[in-house]
Amino acid sequence: MNEITTAGEKKLVLVSGRANNELAEQVAENLGTELLPTDIYNFANGEIYVRFSESVRGCDVFVLQSHCAPINEWLMEQLIMVDALKRASAKRITVIAPFFPYARQDKKHRGREPISARLVADLYKTAGADRIITVDLHTAQIQGYFDGPVDHLIAMPILAGYVKDKYPTELAVVSPDAGRIKVAENWSNALGGVPLAFIHKTRDITRPNETKANRVVGEVEGRTCVLVDDMIDTGGTIVQAADACMAAGATGVIVVSTHAVFSGPAVERLSNSVAQEVIVTNTLPLTEDKMFDKLTVLSIAPLIARAVHEVFEDGSVTSLFEV
Amino acid sequence: MNEITTAGEKKLVLVSGRANNELAEQVAENLGTELLPTDIYNFANGEIYVRFSESVRGCDVFVLQSHCAPINEWLMEQLIMVDALKRASAKRITVIAPFFPYARQDKKHRGREPISARLVADLYKTAGADRIITVDLHTAQIQGYFDGPVDHLIAMPILAGYVKDKYPTELAVVSPDAGRIKVAENWSNALGGVPLAFIHKTRDITRPNETKANRVVGEVEGRTCVLVDDMIDTGGTIVQAADACMAAGATGVIVVSTHAVFSGPAVERLSNSVAQEVIVTNTLPLTEDKMFDKLTVLSIAPLIARAVHEVFEDGSVTSLFEV
Amino acid sequence: MNEITTAGEKKLVLVSGRANNELAEQVAENLGTELLPTDIYNFANGEIYVRFSESVRGCDVFVLQSHCAPINEWLMEQLIMVDALKRASAKRITVIAPFFPYARQDKKHRGREPISARLVADLYKTAGADRIITVDLHTAQIQGYFDGPVDHLIAMPILAGYVKDKYPTELAVVSPDAGRIKVAENWSNALGGVPLAFIHKTRDITRPNETKANRVVGEVEGRTCVLVDDMIDTGGTIVQAADACMAAGATGVIVVSTHAVFSGPAVERLSNSVAQEVIVTNTLPLTEDKMFDKLTVLSIAPLIARAVHEVFEDGSVTSLFEV
Amino acid sequence: MNEITTAGEKKLVLVSGRANNELAEQVAENLGTELLPTDIYNFANGEIYVRFSESVRGCDVFVLQSHCAPINEWLMEQLIMVDALKRASAKRITVIAPFFPYARQDKKHRGREPISARLVADLYKTAGADRIITVDLHTAQIQGYFDGPVDHLIAMPILAGYVKDKYPTELAVVSPDAGRIKVAENWSNALGGVPLAFIHKTRDITRPNETKANRVVGEVEGRTCVLVDDMIDTGGTIVQAADACMAAGATGVIVVSTHAVFSGPAVERLSNSVAQEVIVTNTLPLTEDKMFDKLTVLSIAPLIARAVHEVFEDGSVTSLFEV
Amino acid sequence: MNEITTAGEKKLVLVSGRANNELAEQVAENLGTELLPTDIYNFANGEIYVRFSESVRGCDVFVLQSHCAPINEWLMEQLIMVDALKRASAKRITVIAPFFPYARQDKKHRGREPISARLVADLYKTAGADRIITVDLHTAQIQGYFDGPVDHLIAMPILAGYVKDKYPTELAVVSPDAGRIKVAENWSNALGGVPLAFIHKTRDITRPNETKANRVVGEVEGRTCVLVDDMIDTGGTIVQAADACMAAGATGVIVVSTHAVFSGPAVERLSNSVAQEVIVTNTLPLTEDKMFDKLTVLSIAPLIARAVHEVFEDGSVTSLFEV
Amino acid sequence: MNEITTAGEKKLVLVSGRANNELAEQVAENLGTELLPTDIYNFANGEIYVRFSESVRGCDVFVLQSHCAPINEWLMEQLIMVDALKRASAKRITVIAPFFPYARQDKKHRGREPISARLVADLYKTAGADRIITVDLHTAQIQGYFDGPVDHLIAMPILAGYVKDKYPTELAVVSPDAGRIKVAENWSNALGGVPLAFIHKTRDITRPNETKANRVVGEVEGRTCVLVDDMIDTGGTIVQAADACMAAGATGVIVVSTHAVFSGPAVERLSNSVAQEVIVTNTLPLTEDKMFDKLTVLSIAPLIARAVHEVFEDGSVTSLFEV
Repeated sequence: MNEITTAGEKKLVLVSGRANNELAEQVAENLGTELLPTDIYNFANGEIYVRFSESVRGCDVFVLQSHCAPINEWLMEQLIMVDALKRASAKRITVIAPFFPYARQDKKHRGREPISARLVADLYKTAGADRIITVDLHTAQIQGYFDGPVDHLIAMPILAGYVKDKYPTELAVVSPDAGRIKVAENWSNALGGVPLAFIHKTRDITRPNETKANRVVGEVEGRTCVLVDDMIDTGGTIVQAADACMAAGATGVIVVSTHAVFSGPAVERLSNSVAQEVIVTNTLPLTEDKMFDKLTVLSIAPLIARAVHEVFEDGSVTSLFEV
Repeated sequence: MNEITTAGEKKLVLVSGRANNELAEQVAENLGTELLPTDIYNFANGEIYVRFSESVRGCDVFVLQSHCAPINEWLMEQLIMVDALKRASAKRITVIAPFFPYARQDKKHRGREPISARLVADLYKTAGADRIITVDLHTAQIQGYFDGPVDHLIAMPILAGYVKDKYPTELAVVSPDAGRIKVAENWSNALGGVPLAFIHKTRDITRPNETKANRVVGEVEGRTCVLVDDMIDTGGTIVQAADACMAAGATGVIVVSTHAVFSGPAVERLSNSVAQEVIVTNTLPLTEDKMFDKLTVLSIAPLIARAVHEVFEDGSVTSLFEV
Repeated sequence: MNEITTAGEKKLVLVSGRANNELAEQVAENLGTELLPTDIYNFANGEIYVRFSESVRGCDVFVLQSHCAPINEWLMEQLIMVDALKRASAKRITVIAPFFPYARQDKKHRGREPISARLVADLYKTAGADRIITVDLHTAQIQGYFDGPVDHLIAMPILAGYVKDKYPTELAVVSPDAGRIKVAENWSNALGGVPLAFIHKTRDITRPNETKANRVVGEVEGRTCVLVDDMIDTGGTIVQAADACMAAGATGVIVVSTHAVFSGPAVERLSNSVAQEVIVTNTLPLTEDKMFDKLTVLSIAPLIARAVHEVFEDGSVTSLFEV
Repeated sequence: MNEITTAGEKKLVLVSGRANNELAEQVAENLGTELLPTDIYNFANGEIYVRFSESVRGCDVFVLQSHCAPINEWLMEQLIMVDALKRASAKRITVIAPFFPYARQDKKHRGREPISARLVADLYKTAGADRIITVDLHTAQIQGYFDGPVDHLIAMPILAGYVKDKYPTELAVVSPDAGRIKVAENWSNALGGVPLAFIHKTRDITRPNETKANRVVGEVEGRTCVLVDDMIDTGGTIVQAADACMAAGATGVIVVSTHAVFSGPAVERLSNSVAQEVIVTNTLPLTEDKMFDKLTVLSIAPLIARAVHEVFEDGSVTSLFEV
Repeated sequence: MNEITTAGEKKLVLVSGRANNELAEQVAENLGTELLPTDIYNFANGEIYVRFSESVRGCDVFVLQSHCAPINEWLMEQLIMVDALKRASAKRITVIAPFFPYARQDKKHRGREPISARLVADLYKTAGADRIITVDLHTAQIQGYFDGPVDHLIAMPILAGYVKDKYPTELAVVSPDAGRIKVAENWSNALGGVPLAFIHKTRDITRPNETKANRVVGEVEGRTCVLVDDMIDTGGTIVQAADACMAAGATGVIVVSTHAVFSGPAVERLSNSVAQEVIVTNTLPLTEDKMFDKLTVLSIAPLIARAVHEVFEDGSVTSLFEV
Repeated sequence: MNEITTAGEKKLVLVSGRANNELAEQVAENLGTELLPTDIYNFANGEIYVRFSESVRGCDVFVLQSHCAPINEWLMEQLIMVDALKRASAKRITVIAPFFPYARQDKKHRGREPISARLVADLYKTAGADRIITVDLHTAQIQGYFDGPVDHLIAMPILAGYVKDKYPTELAVVSPDAGRIKVAENWSNALGGVPLAFIHKTRDITRPNETKANRVVGEVEGRTCVLVDDMIDTGGTIVQAADACMAAGATGVIVVSTHAVFSGPAVERLSNSVAQEVIVTNTLPLTEDKMFDKLTVLSIAPLIARAVHEVFEDGSVTSLFEV
């Protein structure tokens, strides 16, 4: 009798940082559970305090945080939560970062720059994260920055389903940036093989001293353009792209994007733009000041909840992130 | 001829985050050099961009940052700077954090809390830091959180020298908190063996339902009390301690602290308090709104510059951090 | 049919080093199990041989060792046991170190010293330990030295319960060292808010050439002093403190300590001291030559067994280490 | 209701590289399962592509590969398979390498050589392997190269059982190399204490200018010699040893070896040699061109299958690798 | 006299694997040194043996290997060389991989795939590499896969200089793949702002059952098309792209690519294609059977030699990899 | 002026643990320097305190310790010294362990044993050692246990030189253990190709119930046997081997061994044995009680000093450890 034996058991727990509590609650609801009560606040000097109100010992914990501004604050908060979970004997810790922080700094554009996206992946690892769930990475290579499993979810089925239902007209898919035309190709396929175009920013070589111009490469005339991008930050690029589409003879423009960063002038630009509708998800919280008439927000919560469920149950997530 | 041989050479470079540029410039001046030009700014969504304008290849680089509010911003900025230095082939990277972030979260006060001070040490390591220079850690044990050399500088000689010169009267050293009386003991010795006291927060056991009271344990009557603490955050504790000293018959109170965090009501409390003078260093930046009549700021820059010099030249720093 | 599926199961196994087999057997008994038979002996040149007599494959193994003299021997023995468990495919390895080795070397008191407590934590990690259970760390910061969960148990409830039952008289809690007064504060609360004092070692500033004297700071007159410390090593400090209490008018002194190191002259000093009773636990083995009339030993085994049980069953240990 | 609870479950999955599919299928059959369908092929430039056709999330996966020529190809293939399993959220990954690659480069024979066997162990770890199952390591010390559990299986019971049954005559065990006589000692015991000899390669000291000669040290006259070695590479050593045995008066020679590397002239040498029978296992694949009349191949699959089963069920493997 | 002091000194050593000795010798010549004599050969079973013939103790060693077929062989060879250098006390080890192995497997295109490019970066690290020098990565994100400095050299200045000198006609830059149009944009700028186009592979949506067609998006009529890609593997894509250019009215096509993988039918396809000239570098060895009339090979050796020189002398490499 | 430049410089420092100060002083003398003054003592409970009295910042430090009994004490002492050096900013730390601790536990002889030699190598690494210098490892594979350079020195030239000079008679080299005959082969060569024999421990197969007997395999008749082994522990094996040699007709026996462990009855056994002379080195300290008439001790210090010098000066050590 040198051994005590007992049946194994798995417990799923979902906790949330303060950046996007609404999304976390939607995910919990989709899973049929509730968020674990957690104390989080800032000390007078800005340091963050975290404490979980109930035991997480032996649990399979998922830590959801959105990474809107102040983004460094929310990132540190999530790292501290992971540290607390590790020290509280959670069995496995999955970071849910629907919008991966610093995804755009994924290479050195010039010498002596950081590769902050790799740094963020390493910080998660150091704090104690075992795995990551994220949505629509700026570049798929970022998956390789984390030394462990990354479940990379794709919002396109949700967004494309909505577009297809609402716009049964003649469509064209337009990439606002040459470098992201591959994503637009996926959209073209998802919408049934509609034409593809991209915006080429170029100097007019016959007038070398003038500024860059946006030119549509591809056919959009007589079509409703679906401008697709992974994120909308200040909205400048996308609004200029919409103008270029109209100038090229498009009959209308709708804008589709997974991540509604909406910094600075974005809301004003978008609501004043030629776009008929702007369709996004809630990977980032959309506070009231970021809402406007043309804006449609589709919830990403069901997709995340399904991924969490499959991860917990050891099911297959592949179907959720293959296009 | 299978080998190319050349003489070795060492190069020192100092870079600074944006939190306390004035201190960094003072350190550079004390070293007889200038800060390396660096581009740092925030993108619209709050992400930080860093780029060094000149080569740091093969250099012995020191990265100074102060950790005032917004503290998570400044910490992430320093981590990103370290990552950029590592990828730019700096030979050795020394983090200078005069006020170590999250030093007060150096243990689990209760279950399911993080140990954020250890987390911060690990984040520095992960980003690529080889060593740390810091000043007056909240607890000396934090040195052990970093897996590498930590040069722990002590501001007391600077502060105590000032006090001794200016207050040749009968002094008593008072610790505002029982748990930090060891530091006060060092001060007692540094001031020539003056009496020692501490503030005991206690319920009156004969009146169990009443609130806590501050009581001076030790003799302060007829003396000028030197209230010493490593940091002043909101100032509540120190101001109450000053009142308790006066109530116990002290003839005056001066407040001495290395780190002037000065959050929320601190400035108002201190300027209205019974304290004659508040003496601090500039480990944290003191913007104009944090200045007040009684405040004396002694520069920590010469001490940091000496440490940097000794680290670079492989001299002994021990004399700088032994009491 | 590409998969073979079977129900999960968890198995708890307890093994013990040679330093304190009695404690290990008490823990096993409290858990309702027996120690796993283990071969341990020294080769002629002092090298230690370890082999477990039964399979530990897939087990949740707890490795208990006490760290009395020869402390380096017992530490190496525990490290070798952990290595053997790791290579024998134990699923999870928890080190139980009731008295954490080298806990007093938790910082550099002067330059060019080690931080041996951090080193020990790293050695455990390297050997293969996943987690640590320990009792009354010398400083709570040591928890942060281990990169993983540490369950820090508190003996005070056991000791204070005994004191309260046996000494319903007027008590005062006295800390023999200014630096550890925080612990005494906890005791003061646990005993119902009794007065608090500490021993201040000081030169008489009016007679600078004389040696240090122990002075009680706080009121102990007419009370039975409860002298509390985490450990008693040679007993010098505590015996002098007891004398100082009596000199300050105490009616009696009892000594309470978790860790009975009892090196060199400790037993003689304590049995000849003014203390009425010396109350300790068996975190360290108390061989016959260390027993004396005034000594009371309370077993720590039930506390450790409860922690092991909760860790194994993924229950909450928090209630065991919160004061 | 902050938690979702479910019963634990374990799933075993077996996958195979392309080097020895037959062995993998035998192991699967012995386990009563099938290999997980896997896509593996080379791109035009030789890079290997791997994809598992079904989910391995949460599974206990065993990755079998044989390491025959082209050995670097098969090693990289196995590393890439492990990487894919890690990123696909396998719960535990066990590398099965029946013939451990580069086992002979287990030390620096001269300065500036690699220790490739340690490198291989580290590469497995880096790719994501949690544990290793291997058969008859060239030296047992290689177990210590992997930072984790290694199950070291011994083929001798299979081989010796066959020899005992078939050759009930007067036997002698002969080691072809002085350095491996320890293994021959084990064989001597396994065959019931038959005499032991070894081949000593030596210059005749009375004729210093002549070349080395093989000399049998020990008594083999009138006996059937069992020449045992862990592997047969080009067969030169073993064939010369067989000749030496016959020259020393042996009545016959049989050759026994776990690993049939059979490089270059091995098949020709062996089939033309004085050996009556050559007995090996299929740890390495034996394609048709490597088969010859005297060759007997015993399957290692039942032994590996038993080890996999015990590892999965947390049983004891010790009985499988103790002599 | 407790110390022995001596002046520092740096020594550069260059070693080469067997895949592209010619390139290594060119680099050595450009540096004004010779390759360190090295013994490398295969054992009969394919295992690689490496030994450096002279001391590398304390040296700054650069290990050049090309990664053509058999690519896994050459990768393992380089890893073994790095291991030997590490154990021989090289001070710093820089891997030179002009064509980074497995660069195309830089993300999971579908579930349960490896990210082999990250794996390769980790294998280099594990073997002991401190830094990497590489040329024209398939995606720049791969830089972030290595935990250390990566000097990413750009061949475009060499290639574009040649094109500009030889083809002063009306040019257009064409990307054979939508996903790599960003690189083509850089070329467009380097050639003075010439028009940009890309090949869009698409189903004709009016004839859904037909196969994909290549369509030029952008204006190429009346221009000589410069088809640019980072590598040419089997040549299928690039040859079809050349045809599409001609079909779209181009007056001629030249093909430019850094990495001449030239697998399978590549040479035949290219020499029979409409392309006037095929311009590549020697990052991969071009054996005689891979040469053909239209082929121009520009040496990458001067660029690599300059990078090695700057790395050794702690100069700036940034100018070598900024476009 | 953003940079401060200075010439590089290297400083060698030698420190010693307490186990074999005499050897350390001999090494220092051979190097022409002195040991760095170091405070080492035990606290009352056996914990070790270490402090270096002078700065080691930026130095190339060599830490010599011998590993005689109490071996765990001396090992921990060396680990603590390394930790202190690391935290004191030594530039590079080389452990000198002339007799590598736990070298005999270099594999699992049976299931559920540790591989303590690997553990020791990992403990050195964790404490902060960059490299190791050792003498005559029990098995050369142990070199591969350390993740870094190991300089493996060979004492045979010293010992064999002495034997050759003193015993110009007819010699035979005898290995006391079949498993170590390879070492004896090297000796046979070093002594000019003298005959080789080994002791075979065997049951007499004709009398199966009797105990093992030692039998000399090989020719020793009429020769002086040189019994060689890497270490002599209790001396049992070697003394029995000497008897067997005499029984087989040897004219005399001399015993040669690098490591004089000399545990328990060793001294008595050896001095009473048939051996004429016992020749060892001082890798382990030989206190007076371990000296006896027949014993000859050759100093290993010149060999270690040469290795240290070459390591420091980046010369070649290969000549020191190749046979």
